[in-house]
Formats: sequence, structure tokens, C-alpha cells
Amino acid sequence: MAAKNNNDILEKVVSLAKRRGFVFQSSEIYGGLNGCWDYGPLGVELLKNIKEEWWKFMTYREDVEGLDASILMHPRTWEASGHVENFTDPMIDCKQCKSRFRLDILADTIATKKKIKSLEAASEKLIGLYPQIADIKSLSENDLNELYNAILDNKDANAALLEEMNCPQCGNKATFTVPRNFNLMFKTFIGPVEDSGAAVYLRPETAQGIFVNFLNVQTASRQKLPFGIAQIGKAFRNEINTKYFLFRTREFEQMEMQFFVPPVKDKEWYDYWKAERLQWFIKLGMKHEKLRYHDHPSNKLAHYAKEATDIEYLFPFGWGEIEGIHNRTNFDLSRHEQFSGKSMKYFDEETKEKFIPFIIETSAGASRSFMAFLLDAYDEEMVNDEMRVVLRLNPRLAPVKAAILPLVNKDGMPEFSRKIETDLRRYFKVFYDDKGAVGRRYRRADEAGTPFAITVDTQTLEDSTVTIRERDSMQQERIAADKITEYLIKKI
Amino acid sequence: MAAKNNNDILEKVVSLAKRRGFVFQSSEIYGGLNGCWDYGPLGVELLKNIKEEWWKFMTYREDVEGLDASILMHPRTWEASGHVENFTDPMIDCKQCKSRFRLDILADTIATKKKIKSLEAASEKLIGLYPQIADIKSLSENDLNELYNAILDNKDANAALLEEMNCPQCGNKATFTVPRNFNLMFKTFIGPVEDSGAAVYLRPETAQGIFVNFLNVQTASRQKLPFGIAQIGKAFRNEINTKYFLFRTREFEQMEMQFFVPPVKDKEWYDYWKAERLQWFIKLGMKHEKLRYHDHPSNKLAHYAKEATDIEYLFPFGWGEIEGIHNRTNFDLSRHEQFSGKSMKYFDEETKEKFIPFIIETSAGASRSFMAFLLDAYDEEMVNDEMRVVLRLNPRLAPVKAAILPLVNKDGMPEFSRKIETDLRRYFKVFYDDKGAVGRRYRRADEAGTPFAITVDTQTLEDSTVTIRERDSMQQERIAADKITEYLIKKI
Repeated sequence: MAAKNNNDILEKVVSLAKRRGFVFQSSEIYGGLNGCWDYGPLGVELLKNIKEEWWKFMTYREDVEGLDASILMHPRTWEASGHVENFTDPMIDCKQCKSRFRLDILADTIATKKKIKSLEAASEKLIGLYPQIADIKSLSENDLNELYNAILDNKDANAALLEEMNCPQCGNKATFTVPRNFNLMFKTFIGPVEDSGAAVYLRPETAQGIFVNFLNVQTASRQKLPFGIAQIGKAFRNEINTKYFLFRTREFEQMEMQFFVPPVKDKEWYDYWKAERLQWFIKLGMKHEKLRYHDHPSNKLAHYAKEATDIEYLFPFGWGEIEGIHNRTNFDLSRHEQFSGKSMKYFDEETKEKFIPFIIETSAGASRSFMAFLLDAYDEEMVNDEMRVVLRLNPRLAPVKAAILPLVNKDGMPEFSRKIETDLRRYFKVFYDDKGAVGRRYRRADEAGTPFAITVDTQTLEDSTVTIRERDSMQQERIAADKITEYLIKKI
Repeated sequence: MAAKNNNDILEKVVSLAKRRGFVFQSSEIYGGLNGCWDYGPLGVELLKNIKEEWWKFMTYREDVEGLDASILMHPRTWEASGHVENFTDPMIDCKQCKSRFRLDILADTIATKKKIKSLEAASEKLIGLYPQIADIKSLSENDLNELYNAILDNKDANAALLEEMNCPQCGNKATFTVPRNFNLMFKTFIGPVEDSGAAVYLRPETAQGIFVNFLNVQTASRQKLPFGIAQIGKAFRNEINTKYFLFRTREFEQMEMQFFVPPVKDKEWYDYWKAERLQWFIKLGMKHEKLRYHDHPSNKLAHYAKEATDIEYLFPFGWGEIEGIHNRTNFDLSRHEQFSGKSMKYFDEETKEKFIPFIIETSAGASRSFMAFLLDAYDEEMVNDEMRVVLRLNPRLAPVKAAILPLVNKDGMPEFSRKIETDLRRYFKVFYDDKGAVGRRYRRADEAGTPFAITVDTQTLEDSTVTIRERDSMQQERIAADKITEYLIKKI
């Protein structure tokens, strides 16, 4: 077995993703657009399969309904949610050339000056300036946020530091302004009149589309509490630091479910969904030892949350959140009731009580799950003194279910193989590959995570049997050609 | 049979869509956001099924690859595509209060003044002012565009009209400016520095994401010409007139495929896809007599097109485009080569030639297809002196595949019914309904387009058989309970 080095696994997977068509840089021919990515032919299938598995798991049950709300929403939504006021990062302006920068520039500039390469290391220097958070050992996203808040709260020490720095735009020794908050929502203008009254935002999360539709969905579907609403869709954040491939991007996809419960049942359902959601990743083949809960301590909870946990995956760069489970209490619906003037109360026919439900949220990143499944599946092993790269994806997630490999290009073999291909295409995404040595074709299929390779050889023409090779074990089995569909349906 | 009145069919379907949870107004509790819609529990399933059928039809073949490009793209993309320069509508400003309006206000204001209700009727008045387009009988979208262009070209007549009008904002008898062009793309700002260099657009079409990835996809998938790239995704246009429910919206979804061919093969593939795409709608049950081609005459082609046709559906308000098939020549790739400085040429290994491929585009509206399928399926009929509303959706498209109806709530019937439900949920979206008289439950299922209703009655408990009622014929069949899954798989 080839030793795996954490530091270069990510690089290898990014390179494989580009080469085999899982993920490309957005607008690459124009130099790319930072924080945006395109899913190629294999990637779009893997992403679709992840989303489909989530959708079936979450909505093919009696107590969850689906929804697909628009990305553009009424701007009052984001006042009610608190995003207009609080979804911010600190910014500074150069007093000389008037250019505006995120406060990260502090860390970046220090990194350059001190020849410290990583943002994290630079930020550690910053931490030194702020003793009140000096107990932070490793800088998670939450820690960074805390750091910036500390800078905002401690303008004097900060000012001294800002005086020292050169402006990256004009190059002058700058006097930067003290940091001010900058909203991370993308803003645009809707409608024929272009004034501030028509400003709208690209949603920074899909959850609000669910909250504002709570009573619409409940009425149309005749659901009774407890029940949930599930949604998959794009969200956008004008992030400071886009980083780690698909982990922190400006455009991303979420798979969210909001479960509405009577207030007294919140703990029960929080625990239920917390367990269910971890199991989902495990059942789809993600390694259990690379998954963990990170429960938020009560003094670090978001303002709306009573209880919260992250499901974290052990990425090559450390533990990172791939899903959050939150007890959001009645915060969201209360705010929307207040801001819209419309009652968001649920009437319980049995108890004759009227109340605003509590919400248990399961919020998974589709893009982050994609990345975690891809990294988790990546493996290298030595086979006959040759390195084999294989994506050990669960067959249900694999972009292509079977490769069809005619051994030689003669004797009616292509015709027989094409017949198999045509039959299978009705059910599965398959790949017909007659180029190069069969060993190389197996490797190509392995690298794409294709779980089964069907080889048509000379014996096929005699007795209508084929060999099916299983990707992970590389075991081959000989079966009748007319049993292939059945075989694959059973295995997948 | 109840007579169908074209004028109120749309109203009835919009009302059904809201009541049963197909489509809600976006952000309804805040008064809605014009031109944006949310898909409810039944709508999201219908939309998913349409997209899934399209995806399978278009990409489960050897010569088409999938893609999912980001909504935000590098801004040079839209310079190359011509959208920055040409994707515009005319605007006028009030010289008194400086408010800005789209030129539609002309039509609207005339409509108000003359007490003419519809925009179309008002526009006909306008046409009178412009004899060069007086031969237009009914105003299609294209005609309206032509009208506005005529106004732009004929500023004198226009100025006289503008002098007459009051400003809808300040109410003064206004002197409006002559019309100027206003871009329909939504603009926002990306990244930490907020200046015009970081302006990006929400894509107004998904096609460009395919064009810029042409060589990435071709290399990764090892495809040879001819081959296509298919994509489903959201697009955004800051439309003048949002209208007709889902027909013209600001946020919508497209299902596009771009097929790359050698220039000499363009006609052959254009004809092929033109035929294929119409068949797709027909095979999914859309009425043939409500579908037609509208070939664009050569003097009305877009600047990039050599040949173009619309697949039109007969909506209650008239024929409307649901898909366009275009021969885009080598326009797009040539422009991207020019603007990016990167070669977009394909090397043909057989002929040893290097050239920019021609593109045959099939561009369908997912949202418009949704609306057409919904309207097409809507039917009313008298059954035993009672009106039955039924959505005759193809079972493959139907949001819910089967309703499970226990006849009475006793004798182990619920348990038996729940067992059927659990078994079916592994394969299908199903609905368990034990509320109210069975006749009403049938009606609820009919209205949701549910193709099969499974009734569990007293005989079930004796011999383990159930009745299956087919939605359209209302015929009932008695089958063994353990054969239900098989039965449904066969029928769907």
C-alpha cells in the first residue's frame, strides 16, 4: 500500500477531479472566478446521486414534504432573519486611495511582511495582540470570527497595527480606517425602477425559503405537527476567504430540512435527527472513523439556537463541518410573524392550542458532502507493482455504474457489446470503452469510481456469458449476458 | 363534459397550483416578489420528474455529457457572448423627478388613459403610430421587441407621445427623455474590493457555461465530434413584463444541450434534434395538436443563428415558446476564442483538420415545460352529476405515484395499509390518506394527478387482495397485495 500523505491528498484529488471531469474551475478560459466551481460530466452525476439519496432519505417518508423556493426573495426576509444586520465581516478603507479591503488584509499583510505563509499562522500573530482570546489553540472558522470581533472591540491596539501597514492598492504607508462591518450577502436590483427600494439579495441560505412557506406547505399538504420541509438549492455568500477547493466557496448548494415540532418535543426530535443524519453518511459508505459530532458549548451558540451540533469530516486540512443540526427554537417563525404581520402560529386540533412551533434544522452542504465523499473514496494501492488509483464510491453514488469493455474489435464482439450497452442504458449511466489495453481500461474505470466492468471476450461469442469485475476487490465473475441488468440492479 | 373556457383555465390552474401545493408566490407573507415563484410539495416532484426525464433522454446516450456550471461566471463571458452590449430593453427617465421607467410605461399609461385593459391592446394603439410595423396582427414577444425597436428608431413620433404622458412617480405632466437601452442582466459585486472591476452578473442563460467548458469536457470525457453537453440550471433576467404565471419570470430554470458538430454536418444534426425534441414532449403525454414548430424566417434570425425554430405550446393565452432549437454556427466559440485568447479549436484526428465546431442548441424552459405539462394535464369532467377535476399527467411525471386508502379504520386495516405504504415508499413517492369518504379521497388523488389509488377493504383482510383504481379511466382491478410493487413498476 502506498503511504498516504495528508498534505498532498487534496492536491491529488483536485487534479483527478479536473483531469477526469469531476470539477473544473469556473470560467477557466478567463482565468477563473474565485470561489465558484463547475461540475463536469462525472461530477454532475456524483452530485446528482448524492442529492437524490438525500431527497429519498429525507422526503420519501410521511412526515416530510419537499420544496423548491426561489433564490431571490423579498428583502424583508433578510431583515427578519437578521442577515441584513448581522451577516457581516469587518472591512477597512485606505484613507489615501480610498480602496476598501476586508480585515483579512491584516493577516495577509503580516504574513507577507513576516514571511509567514499561511493565513492561519499570520492570524496567530494577530492573536498575540489580543490576549483575551490567547487561549485559542488552532484557528477554526469560529475562532477567526471571534478574532475579528475582538479586533472590532479593541480599536486602539488595532489602530497601531493598521498604521504600520502599506496599502496593497496604492502602496503608500497607509492610515487605514478602523474596521467597519460589511455584509456578506450579494446584493442586486430587481424591477424596472433602479433605486434602493428594489434592492434584493441572493439568498445566503435556503432555510428562509422554508420558513416563509411554513403555513403554505402545511395547509396544502394537510400535515400535522411534527412534520418537516426539505429543500435542495443554491446559496451565495461573498466570502472573505474562499479556500480548500469546494469547502468554502461563494456559490454552493445546500440540502436543508426544517422539522416543525411542538416546543415540548424539541429535545426528542433534535436527538432523533442528530442520529439519523450521521447514519446517512455512514450508510452511503463514508468511513465512520472520519466522522464525528462537534457539539457547540452553550456559551458559543448562535443567538437563535438552543442546542447545536456539527457533523464533521476529517478532511486533509483537519476536521470540517459538512452538516449542522440545530434547535432553532421559535426564533425564525416569531421574527417572520413580527416582520410580516402575518400569523405564523399553528393550531393544534387535539389540544386546541395555538402556538409557534420550534424548529429542528438539519443543514447539509451538498458541495461539501460531494467533496467529503470524493476524498473519502480516494485510494491508492499497488497491484502487480503498479499503482492503482481507485475511487471506492458506494455504487449508488458512483457517476457511472458499469463500463462495457469488448476485449478485441472483431468477430461480432463490438455488436454484442453494443447490445449490452443499449440494454443497460435504459436503467443506468454506463460507459462503453474499446480504446487501449484492457488493463488501462480497468484503471480508467477504477479512477472514475465505476463499480462494475463488463468484459466481452471470445468465450462470450460461444456461450453468451461475460465477466463482471468488481472495482474494489477486482474479483471477476462469469455470468450469462442476459442476467447483467438483474445482477446490477441487485448490486446497486 | 364541462365546457372549457380558455380564459379561465389559466386562473383555475393557478388556483389549483396554490391550493394543492404545486406553486406558491415567492415570499408571499411579505406581499410576494414579482417574477419569482416557489415550487411546493407536489410542484417540486413534478419539476424534478420533468428534469429527470430530460436528463435521461438527453444524457443516457454515448454522445452527450452532463455539466453543472456555476451561476456566477467571469464577467468577460458576457462581453464575449454579446449580452453586455445587446441584452437590453429601452428605458426612459422623467426629467422632473428623475425616476426611471421601462418603455412599457408607454403602453401602460396609454392603457390607463384610454381605459384599455390589456397591455396588448394598448400596444396595438402604439403600433398605429408606427406604420412600418402596422402589418402585425397579434402581438407576440418578438413583435413587442420589434415595436420597442421601432420606437427607439423613431424618436420624433415617440417624443410627441412622451410629452403627453404624466409620470407615474411624481404625477407631473412629464417630459420624458428619449428611450435608452437598459441591460436585463442582474448585476452584483464579488470579492473583498467593492469597485466596478469586481462586477459580475447572474447568468441570463445557462448556455455560456457550456461553451466556456467545451474543451474541458471534451478532453476529460475523450469525446469526438459530434457530441453534446447538457445542463439543467437556473438563469435570471430582469424582465420588463413578468406575466402569465410561470411563463415569463425573473428567475427560471433551463434545460439546455449544446451539440458540437463539424460545420458540414450542421443541417443534418439540426434536423435530427428538431425532431427528437418535439417527440420528447409527445412521448411524455403532451397533446400533439397543442404543439407546433415555429420556424424563424431567415430575416428574423438572431445575429448568431443560421437556422432556428421554436417548439410552441398552445397556452390559454396563445402559442408560446417552450423550447428553441438553433443552429448557432461557430459564433459562440469564435467569440470566446477572441475574448479569452485561448484556442477553442477542435482537432479532428481522422482528417487532421483543426476547426471551430458549429453548435446545434436545444434550449428548453424547465419552468415553462412544467407549466405546459400542468395545463395540458388539467381536465374537468362530470361523473355522476359531480364535477371531477383531474390532472392527466403521465405516470412518470406524476408527483405522487400511488395513494393508499384504507376503507375503514378498523380490523387491522390500517396496519395492512401501512405495510403496503412502507413497501412502496422504498421505490415511489406515495400518499397515505385515511381522512374522509373514499369518494373525496379519490378526488383529492385525481386533482394531484396521482395515477393509482390502492384501496384496502374488508375483502383484503380475507384474501390479501386490494383494488387498484386507475386515475384516467377510473377502472378498478383486484390484485394480490404482494404484487402491487411489480404492478406499479410495470405501469410506470
